[in-house]
Amino acid sequence: MTTEIAVEELKTEDFINEKVKEIKDAVGSGTAINALSGGVDSSTVTMLGHRALGENLKTVFVQNGLMREGEPEQVVGFFRELGVTVEVIDAREEFFAALKGVTDPEEKREAVTQTFYKNVFGRLVKESGAKFLLQGTILTDIDETVAGIKRQHNVFEQLGIDPQEAFGYRIIEPLIQLRKDGVRRVGKTLGLPSELFKRIPFPGPALAARVIGEATPERIETVRKATVIVERTLKDTGAFQYMAILHQDRVTGMRDGKRDFGRQIELRCWDSVDAREGTPSEVPWPKLRRLADRLVAEVPGAVSVTYNLATKPPSTMEAV
Amino acid sequence: MTTEIAVEELKTEDFINEKVKEIKDAVGSGTAINALSGGVDSSTVTMLGHRALGENLKTVFVQNGLMREGEPEQVVGFFRELGVTVEVIDAREEFFAALKGVTDPEEKREAVTQTFYKNVFGRLVKESGAKFLLQGTILTDIDETVAGIKRQHNVFEQLGIDPQEAFGYRIIEPLIQLRKDGVRRVGKTLGLPSELFKRIPFPGPALAARVIGEATPERIETVRKATVIVERTLKDTGAFQYMAILHQDRVTGMRDGKRDFGRQIELRCWDSVDAREGTPSEVPWPKLRRLADRLVAEVPGAVSVTYNLATKPPSTMEAV
Repeated sequence: MTTEIAVEELKTEDFINEKVKEIKDAVGSGTAINALSGGVDSSTVTMLGHRALGENLKTVFVQNGLMREGEPEQVVGFFRELGVTVEVIDAREEFFAALKGVTDPEEKREAVTQTFYKNVFGRLVKESGAKFLLQGTILTDIDETVAGIKRQHNVFEQLGIDPQEAFGYRIIEPLIQLRKDGVRRVGKTLGLPSELFKRIPFPGPALAARVIGEATPERIETVRKATVIVERTLKDTGAFQYMAILHQDRVTGMRDGKRDFGRQIELRCWDSVDAREGTPSEVPWPKLRRLADRLVAEVPGAVSVTYNLATKPPSTMEAV
Repeated sequence: MTTEIAVEELKTEDFINEKVKEIKDAVGSGTAINALSGGVDSSTVTMLGHRALGENLKTVFVQNGLMREGEPEQVVGFFRELGVTVEVIDAREEFFAALKGVTDPEEKREAVTQTFYKNVFGRLVKESGAKFLLQGTILTDIDETVAGIKRQHNVFEQLGIDPQEAFGYRIIEPLIQLRKDGVRRVGKTLGLPSELFKRIPFPGPALAARVIGEATPERIETVRKATVIVERTLKDTGAFQYMAILHQDRVTGMRDGKRDFGRQIELRCWDSVDAREGTPSEVPWPKLRRLADRLVAEVPGAVSVTYNLATKPPSTMEAV
């Protein structure tokens, strides 16, 4: 049973001291490991863990091949500035092997989860000798998983899975009583740079959740190119979240006067407070039109660009 | 070799008299048949043919199951007012049988063409004893087919097909020197009601061109529902063409707090002069948002609605 700490009741210094003590008590003289994705949740956990354990916490960044452009370098750079060493593990081949031929959204999430925990992270934990895993699960992840809306990649106990039995280590989740706004406040108090808080939400399965159908290296590279353009262009809208989605459907287009069955890129740009409900942002037409022109010019094979008009619900923020 | 008659040089009364004479001379005391779709081209040909041949022209309307809601009744009603009897032929089963399992856009067009000419219309011609077929081919159809952009359903000679040899009848194409604007003027002079000219362009393969993937009766019914809503809502925009497209890709949505892999409807609303180039209309946001809300509420299974932002080229007006 998890008790929510409402953001208005959150005293960040007290919270940090309490969690640092809990982590110290749990890990004792042992070692812990955690995986940093660069999101606010895992970044905050990294800082909490390092404050509690210092060198006894090993932080790894798993390069799964599904990240946005320049993401590993940027995240590792932020933490280097904060005095935290992050080890980058190249596991691209393993992830793409697991995603090969998988088209169902839930099976894709499952493939990413299984590859991460059982293969890559399981191996890293064994090699490190750590018996404790620090993880950035927040309360919203549990709500959504229990409701059956989306299987988050980092929720185990709520699904009746014992991680010690299944994966050989114990999971510590210091943020489990908070929602996103609370985590942001804690992270800020811990000294995380403001760039990290300005980052828009990004899903656990990363760009694999931004392609409908199979997540091949080539399709991921296509949506990565689109993502750079979309994120740079829509940054100044102040929207809650924005994204490019590569569709599986092919649509008729024309190049040099000849037919070209091409790709379609869907844009979503959400106004939202906490991701529980969302409305499409009313981005000015000239901006949207210029963005579409750039995408069909610069993304290989793209002949069509659309903009999401549906609210959440019945849509969700992500398409996959 | 076809000589274009530019619209500014078109004298509609002279054109009509000339074409009426040509049709009379060709058909003589025989009988002719034509298929009316309700588009401006086939409606104009119907009026020309009836002026030339009277009762010796048999006009049929083939109900292929791919029409918009209420279309057969509406078209037959228009012509009843003009004193022209139109026979409705129910061929829905034949068309859906031919479309079963067909997902490629060009193969869908081919299935509709073949079913129409070889099966349904071939049979009707034989039963009627007519040796002449009047057809509403216009110059733009030839241009696009020759360029290989889209295979129009009514272009034979340009593709090296002899309709007499292939299908057993001779084709007469009285509008072949005109483009859309010229046909509209001729049709108006022939007394066609203004409602017919206000109808937006609609593709030959009808709603089969408005679903990505297989055109099953159920999927056609879904896009038909969406089409009613979209056409009524966007009518007053003054746009050149607007449409709803049912995608094959499934996207994640939520209903009653549970995950629902649903359908996506894409909207396209084009500003264009002659369909050769096109730009997305800047429809006011409140109108688009209300339209999206209606679609997810009223179209079975729809959880997502998008709006096209790409220009033609590299897009085409239709997605299929």
